[in-house]
Amino acid sequence: MEDTYGELIGSLAKENDKRIVLLVMDGVGDCDNDGRGTALQIANTPNLDKLAGQSALGLHHPVGVAITPGSGPGHLGLFGFDPLIYKVGRGVLSALGIEFDLSPRDVAARLNFCTLDADGNVTDRRAGRIGDDENRRVLDKIRAALKPPAGVEVFLETVSEHRALLVLRGDDLDDNIGETDPQVVGVQPLSPIRAPHDTSPTAKIVADIIEQVRTILADETKANMILARGFAKYPNWPTFAERFKLKPTAVAGYPMYRGVARLVGMPILSQPTTAEDVCKEAAAAMADHTFVFAHFKYTDKTGEDGDLAGKVQRIEEMDAAIGTLLAAKPDVLIITGDHSTPPSLMAHSWHPVPILMKAPSLRGGDSGGFNEIACLAGQIGTIHANQIIPLAMAHAGKLDKFGA
Amino acid sequence: MEDTYGELIGSLAKENDKRIVLLVMDGVGDCDNDGRGTALQIANTPNLDKLAGQSALGLHHPVGVAITPGSGPGHLGLFGFDPLIYKVGRGVLSALGIEFDLSPRDVAARLNFCTLDADGNVTDRRAGRIGDDENRRVLDKIRAALKPPAGVEVFLETVSEHRALLVLRGDDLDDNIGETDPQVVGVQPLSPIRAPHDTSPTAKIVADIIEQVRTILADETKANMILARGFAKYPNWPTFAERFKLKPTAVAGYPMYRGVARLVGMPILSQPTTAEDVCKEAAAAMADHTFVFAHFKYTDKTGEDGDLAGKVQRIEEMDAAIGTLLAAKPDVLIITGDHSTPPSLMAHSWHPVPILMKAPSLRGGDSGGFNEIACLAGQIGTIHANQIIPLAMAHAGKLDKFGA
Repeated sequence: MEDTYGELIGSLAKENDKRIVLLVMDGVGDCDNDGRGTALQIANTPNLDKLAGQSALGLHHPVGVAITPGSGPGHLGLFGFDPLIYKVGRGVLSALGIEFDLSPRDVAARLNFCTLDADGNVTDRRAGRIGDDENRRVLDKIRAALKPPAGVEVFLETVSEHRALLVLRGDDLDDNIGETDPQVVGVQPLSPIRAPHDTSPTAKIVADIIEQVRTILADETKANMILARGFAKYPNWPTFAERFKLKPTAVAGYPMYRGVARLVGMPILSQPTTAEDVCKEAAAAMADHTFVFAHFKYTDKTGEDGDLAGKVQRIEEMDAAIGTLLAAKPDVLIITGDHSTPPSLMAHSWHPVPILMKAPSLRGGDSGGFNEIACLAGQIGTIHANQIIPLAMAHAGKLDKFGA
Repeated sequence: MEDTYGELIGSLAKENDKRIVLLVMDGVGDCDNDGRGTALQIANTPNLDKLAGQSALGLHHPVGVAITPGSGPGHLGLFGFDPLIYKVGRGVLSALGIEFDLSPRDVAARLNFCTLDADGNVTDRRAGRIGDDENRRVLDKIRAALKPPAGVEVFLETVSEHRALLVLRGDDLDDNIGETDPQVVGVQPLSPIRAPHDTSPTAKIVADIIEQVRTILADETKANMILARGFAKYPNWPTFAERFKLKPTAVAGYPMYRGVARLVGMPILSQPTTAEDVCKEAAAAMADHTFVFAHFKYTDKTGEDGDLAGKVQRIEEMDAAIGTLLAAKPDVLIITGDHSTPPSLMAHSWHPVPILMKAPSLRGGDSGGFNEIACLAGQIGTIHANQIIPLAMAHAGKLDKFGA
């Protein structure tokens, strides 16, 4: 699929010294939590509400109407990369999640340890959910005995419990590789070499590795085999800096978000986690960068825990901290989320996400404070996530006119 | 054109027991009827207004901004099939309108009886608008004498006045067939075999049939020939059940709407026409189905008759009946139209159509009652018709997350 909009923005982008800060309050959007209200409605946020009165408000769809985004697609959209065009394979996402330093020559896959019976049939697709220590022990054993196929480096990393990461590094590797997880027990693992993928040279390399692993783990009782899925090559995309002519950096305390930033070539400056530190580090990052991505995790975490009071508290922490960031006077400040995470659902959701944009050349400030209902009536309207950076660039004088 | 959004929703769809009801008040949207107000504004609807206060409101474009939809595209959009991608040929729509039981081996076309002079030139493209009885008499005459081409069944059905339906049934038929209506008088009918369609085997079959008809009707004074247009094969689409993993059924009193439902594989349960019966039957249908499409015709009919008072009355009838449907407690209830039909225009129109969605996990209820103006400010915003079912599925927990 062609990225008509992204390429157009790229063709219009121009550099100047204006600073854009994107503060992501992860999962900040909400529903009414069975009548209790949204966390933004409940929270006491005098600073954010005052800021809203000087800002443009709106809502965004991270992926599309009714679509609940994962963290990867959610952040790619905010970075201006339409997640329906720039698709991240599951293997790559898995590598990002443990901060494995992927390179463009890599193919990554998710592994599960599993248990086979004497006939080679799968009896447990998760090897009894072995613990992290056992996972590490078995991976060490494989690493010690595995003979890497010619011209290929093999990386094996513990993720958690029965989950691990496989990365192949080499020239001209492909990811047309079948999943070996049969999804049911009582049958043998599938071969990675199979139609319509049977012309993949990399699948043959994977098959060789898997057969070696079978031999190496033959004397194990639980984790005596691996199942692989989500084979994905490191994506070959334009970088954020190339696309938008911005000098970006990321300030993010959690591996997944640093990983997605690196996917678009955004270097990591620091790893703060508290609201106070995130705002302080973002303010400092403005000295040397025209774009700062700052990530605050706890609004999502409390939402996933079903902890509405906790989510409210985390929002109030950000409200108290935001002054530090405002004092650094970003030319454009965007505050939004990568998706909604309603505590009543204890999960990411499809609800459009509030946007606050403090910027020059607004149509006045919007009223009603910073919450979902005020944002619905805001001057930005309801837009797609990948339109937020372009809009900030327009307000910062970083986009040329289209046509004469 | 690829259906990226529809296929994405299909890939995320999952089954559960939640019930979604789509109540279509045909043509319910309106304009202000020269200052008198919209029918929804004028109508006294205490039950719908109360429901609106517990629901999400919005508007939808059935096809696109400024596009006035026919009933076929209007309903396909509501069924989640973007009508700009899933195009129904005019011949197929004509068959649906008279409830002809089309099969996947069929090609359908619209016929007009016409009058030719002694030189074979068209003198009247509608054969003097002959009546239905005359139409039936002439069709009987053709049926009695026509020798069907080898391997093909030929069906001829009266529609109304000078209009009829032609259906060919056979293996490997195509619809690359030229229209024979020259659109002007004083010239001969066109041949169905013509560039760029001159390789169509089915066009030759059609040409044979048309020449037989010319001979059979040679002694008629008015309807002495047929003109054919809108050749269309039965579409080969995913079914509604496959696409959305829902178990659907339709409750619809008029042939056209049952026909469009069948086009996406939705079986017909019953054929109520009054508001009371539509709600009663829809409630009953929920017992065995996870999706119920219920159709109420009279809001459109009164609009097309230019009868604003009548349209208001039909809306009030639905308001009185809706309690029966609410009592059955659908998990998600959608009330909307397939297009607008303003009485002042006496026709379908392009105005976006009000949506009411009663569902879990809303952002509170929207206020202002159920009408076009309140819907403009509603939390759903203005969306495309094919996003309504996905949104209902999201609220019903029937859609997985996109990406990790």
